[in-house]
Amino acid sequence: MKKVAIGVDIGGTNTAIGVVDGEGNVMVKDSIPTPSHGNLDRYIEELTVAIKELIKSVKLVNSDIEILGIGIGAPNGNYYNGTIEYAPNLSFQGVVPLVELLKKSFPELDALALTNDANAAAIGEMIYGGAKGMKNFVMFTLGTGVGSGIVVNGDLVYGADGFAGECGHTVLIPEGRMCGCGTKGHLEAYCSAPGMKRTAFEILVRDNAVNSLLADKSYKELDSKMIFDAAEKGDKVALEVFEKTGHWLGQALADTVHHLSPEAVFLFGGPTAAGDYIFKPTKAGMEKYLLPIFKDKIQILPSKLKQGDAAIVGASALVWKEVDK
Amino acid sequence: MKKVAIGVDIGGTNTAIGVVDGEGNVMVKDSIPTPSHGNLDRYIEELTVAIKELIKSVKLVNSDIEILGIGIGAPNGNYYNGTIEYAPNLSFQGVVPLVELLKKSFPELDALALTNDANAAAIGEMIYGGAKGMKNFVMFTLGTGVGSGIVVNGDLVYGADGFAGECGHTVLIPEGRMCGCGTKGHLEAYCSAPGMKRTAFEILVRDNAVNSLLADKSYKELDSKMIFDAAEKGDKVALEVFEKTGHWLGQALADTVHHLSPEAVFLFGGPTAAGDYIFKPTKAGMEKYLLPIFKDKIQILPSKLKQGDAAIVGASALVWKEVDK
Repeated sequence: MKKVAIGVDIGGTNTAIGVVDGEGNVMVKDSIPTPSHGNLDRYIEELTVAIKELIKSVKLVNSDIEILGIGIGAPNGNYYNGTIEYAPNLSFQGVVPLVELLKKSFPELDALALTNDANAAAIGEMIYGGAKGMKNFVMFTLGTGVGSGIVVNGDLVYGADGFAGECGHTVLIPEGRMCGCGTKGHLEAYCSAPGMKRTAFEILVRDNAVNSLLADKSYKELDSKMIFDAAEKGDKVALEVFEKTGHWLGQALADTVHHLSPEAVFLFGGPTAAGDYIFKPTKAGMEKYLLPIFKDKIQILPSKLKQGDAAIVGASALVWKEVDK
Repeated sequence: MKKVAIGVDIGGTNTAIGVVDGEGNVMVKDSIPTPSHGNLDRYIEELTVAIKELIKSVKLVNSDIEILGIGIGAPNGNYYNGTIEYAPNLSFQGVVPLVELLKKSFPELDALALTNDANAAAIGEMIYGGAKGMKNFVMFTLGTGVGSGIVVNGDLVYGADGFAGECGHTVLIPEGRMCGCGTKGHLEAYCSAPGMKRTAFEILVRDNAVNSLLADKSYKELDSKMIFDAAEKGDKVALEVFEKTGHWLGQALADTVHHLSPEAVFLFGGPTAAGDYIFKPTKAGMEKYLLPIFKDKIQILPSKLKQGDAAIVGASALVWKEVDK
């Protein structure tokens, strides 16, 4: 009997679904639109159909398959209640009891669990990735926002109400840039992909750098991939963007280390593809702020989850963690 | 059989020792000098004698007493190894295997454990104080420095190497005041008792406030109690010191909440005796920086440990926690 888990990643526009084996390989996957109409019942129906189709298709190839459960990654996902709560980027209002609703469609499955996407990524790293065997680590995801997942003594930290690990909203620079959440100076406003764009334009403005490769992009179109490409060509503005982003991220990581004393910090997401451009200044920034007892002890590592499938794989890892209990 | 625990608090100048009952009452206590000569063997001898004397004296009053173990709070205390490591304020060099050495004097005791003083205070709060029944909370101790202890799922967080919970060394203001650890901008440089003194002089200078009650104290003599007394008399500089200290502490607490989603934050130490002067701006500062999902949820509470005995009581709580395992 081959045991597999379903991973569901609910994003603002699409919901990705996959069947994942015990090694973190996606056997088959699909995606449906995350509705903008806010009709929850219809969405649950569509999600149920999509999951059942995927299960049918893997069983066609291998009839000897056991489905262990469904893991869901979603913005503002509350693990304790199995709910999505007031997610600003989803059309559903208020508190959505997703696990309860999905349970009705899959009464035969014991392990149904939900958390936010960064927590799911941390569990994915622990179950399938570079954190196998680690008991204390943190995961920072850099993308549209900055997310984080914290593992202490081998368990994800959910906190008193299920929302722990919002390190993207720690204060990096008091009274600094406006964050998407409405508060000033948060890490996310600096070290997310849009944060890097903001940094690029700050430098363009400061140096009036009309000859930079980044100077012919509009504020709307510039993205972190373009900044990486320009850095590869030696563009000074682009190189400084990575320097600053890494330094800022390192400062935040030092704070996290002082809280938790992790063995390693994993970085995940688009900007981490820039390799040393981002990892080197991040390491230097972190070391600068650390107490002597922590210096040269904490590894900063790239996530081993495959970029494209990571959200599905991370969500599916929740199931293995549940079954393990 | 009445069960009791020994608490030992190792400070820079004195080592306080007490026998503590299950309700956190100190039945009898003593203190010996923490040596400046660095002679570890002699210190262990003296400590052993003092502990044995105390045990003898409680057994004289009540022969029906069982000693469960010895809990030790010490700067740079490493719970995992039972060691004190490179403590800047103690005369012992390098790594001191205190638990191992003390075990030789008390082979009959199973529970010997050591951690730093702020962690001990957090465990004390959980076993005897206001955090009874709480599974997720943090403790911040304000004194010569700013210490912290973190509890997740009912257990103290020690992290990968036993040094978690150094929130006093998170970055509050990048490139700000020099911290005692040699790095700039750490919380401890602002919200410790000496940090409040620094703030007072900053305000005196900024406003050239020669008429402030604080203006006739030297930099060396001004302390947080004097600032409190002046605030009670309506002194504007003193009142602003509390306003700023609270705001800064609140900013740091928000960062901690975003990491850990605790149920409550406990504050302990001299400056907290100022009550609303410090608690009100701390609460306001924290709320200002919190994500909507955390707003108006997190209690900021004064520690219920008695100021004078807290270090002994906290250290003794380690024993109950060990026995509980």
